[in-house]
Amino acid sequence: MGTTHVPIVQRILNANDQIAAQNRAKLDSEGIFGINIMASPGAGKTSTILKTIEALKDRMRIGVIEGDTAAVTIDADKIKAVGIPVVQINTGGGCHLDAPMVADALQQLPLQELDLLIVENVGNLVCPATFNIGTHANIVVASIPEGDDKPYKYPRIYQGIDVLLLNKTDLAPYVAFNTDYFRRGVEILNQNVNFLPISCKTGEGLDRWADWLLQKAAH
Amino acid sequence: MGTTHVPIVQRILNANDQIAAQNRAKLDSEGIFGINIMASPGAGKTSTILKTIEALKDRMRIGVIEGDTAAVTIDADKIKAVGIPVVQINTGGGCHLDAPMVADALQQLPLQELDLLIVENVGNLVCPATFNIGTHANIVVASIPEGDDKPYKYPRIYQGIDVLLLNKTDLAPYVAFNTDYFRRGVEILNQNVNFLPISCKTGEGLDRWADWLLQKAAH
Repeated sequence: MGTTHVPIVQRILNANDQIAAQNRAKLDSEGIFGINIMASPGAGKTSTILKTIEALKDRMRIGVIEGDTAAVTIDADKIKAVGIPVVQINTGGGCHLDAPMVADALQQLPLQELDLLIVENVGNLVCPATFNIGTHANIVVASIPEGDDKPYKYPRIYQGIDVLLLNKTDLAPYVAFNTDYFRRGVEILNQNVNFLPISCKTGEGLDRWADWLLQKAAH
Repeated sequence: MGTTHVPIVQRILNANDQIAAQNRAKLDSEGIFGINIMASPGAGKTSTILKTIEALKDRMRIGVIEGDTAAVTIDADKIKAVGIPVVQINTGGGCHLDAPMVADALQQLPLQELDLLIVENVGNLVCPATFNIGTHANIVVASIPEGDDKPYKYPRIYQGIDVLLLNKTDLAPYVAFNTDYFRRGVEILNQNVNFLPISCKTGEGLDRWADWLLQKAAH
C-alpha cells in the first residue's frame, strides 16, 4: 500500500524546505535575524515577545508574525498596541506553521525596516518541530507549571533548538518542579542548547535573552 | 492537483470513524463507559487520572490507555503503580491518537473486568480534536497558568466536549486568570459543557467530577 504514498510525502516535505530556504535567503538579503518561537499553549510565547520588544525596541527594529489556529487577533493586537509591525497567519485549524505561510506573511512586512523578525508558531509541542520555516534560530518557551517531565515526553521539539527559555520561574515556589531533571532532559536531546530561566512577570533572565539576540543578530 | 487528493483524505477519515464505531460497540458490549481526556502538555491529565482512580477505585473497575509521542513510560508507570491495568500507545511522534491505535490497545486490556476506561490522549490542544476514537465522552483538562484566552485561540477542541475540568485552581492567587472570561469562551463554543474547576493538589472539585463519572457510567 505504501508504494505510491511515500514518494508523495517526500515531495511535500521537500517543497516546504525549498520555500524555507527562500525565506531564509530573503531574510539574509535584508540583514534580518529571524527566530521561530515554539511552545505549548500558555507557556508564555506572546508575553516573552512583548518583553523582548520592551527590552530591545530602542536597539533593534522588530517585526512579528503571529501564528494562530483561529481568526482571533488577541496576540496580534497586543503586538500592534506597542507599535510593532505584525502580520497574523490564521492556519484555519492547522497545528503548525509551514514555510509557504511564512513566505506569504513576509510579503506583508516592511522588511527593509527590520533587524529582527520574531515568528510565534502555533501553541503545540508536537507538530511545529518538524517544519522548517526558514528562520535562523529555533526557540522553545517552556514553563514551570507545565512540569519537569516534558522533554522526556515530547522529545522531538527540543532537538535542534538554539535556546530554551524556561518561563514562569516566579511560580517555582508553588509548583513541584525539578529544574535539574528538566534541564538534563533537554540536554540529553541537545547538547548545544542555551538554557535560560526567565520570568515575564518579574523580568528575571530577560537581560540574558536580550543579549543573546543582540549578539546573534550582529553576526 | 487537488482532484485526486481530496477523496483520499475523505477515505482516511471515514476509516477512522468506522473503527471508532467498532471501538464504541466493543465498550458497549462489555458495559464499559469510556472517556477521552485531552489537554495541552502539562495541564494535568495524568494527575487528574490518578486522582480519579483514587476517588473511584473502590466503586468502579478502571482501565487506562496512555497516549504518548515517545516510548517513555513515565505516565503509564504512575498508573501501574496504583494497581490499575494500563496500556501505552507510543504514537512515534504522532500528534494525536486515532481509532485504530485505540482498537489495538483495547485488545490488550481485560475488558470483561472493567467499568470505566480512561484514555489519555497526546498533550495537544489542536490535533486530537478532529479524531473520534470511539469513547463515550470527551473531556478537556485546562489549567489556570495556561491563561484565560485559550478557548478563543484554540476553539476546535472545546466543541463537542462533555466536561471541561479547569485544573490548578490552587495557583489562582499567583496568576492573572479571569474565570468568567475563560468560561464564556468555552460556553460560546459549547453550551452543553459541564464546567468543573478542580485542583489535583488540594482535591477541590474532584468529588463533583467523580459523581459525574459515576452517574454517566450507570446509564
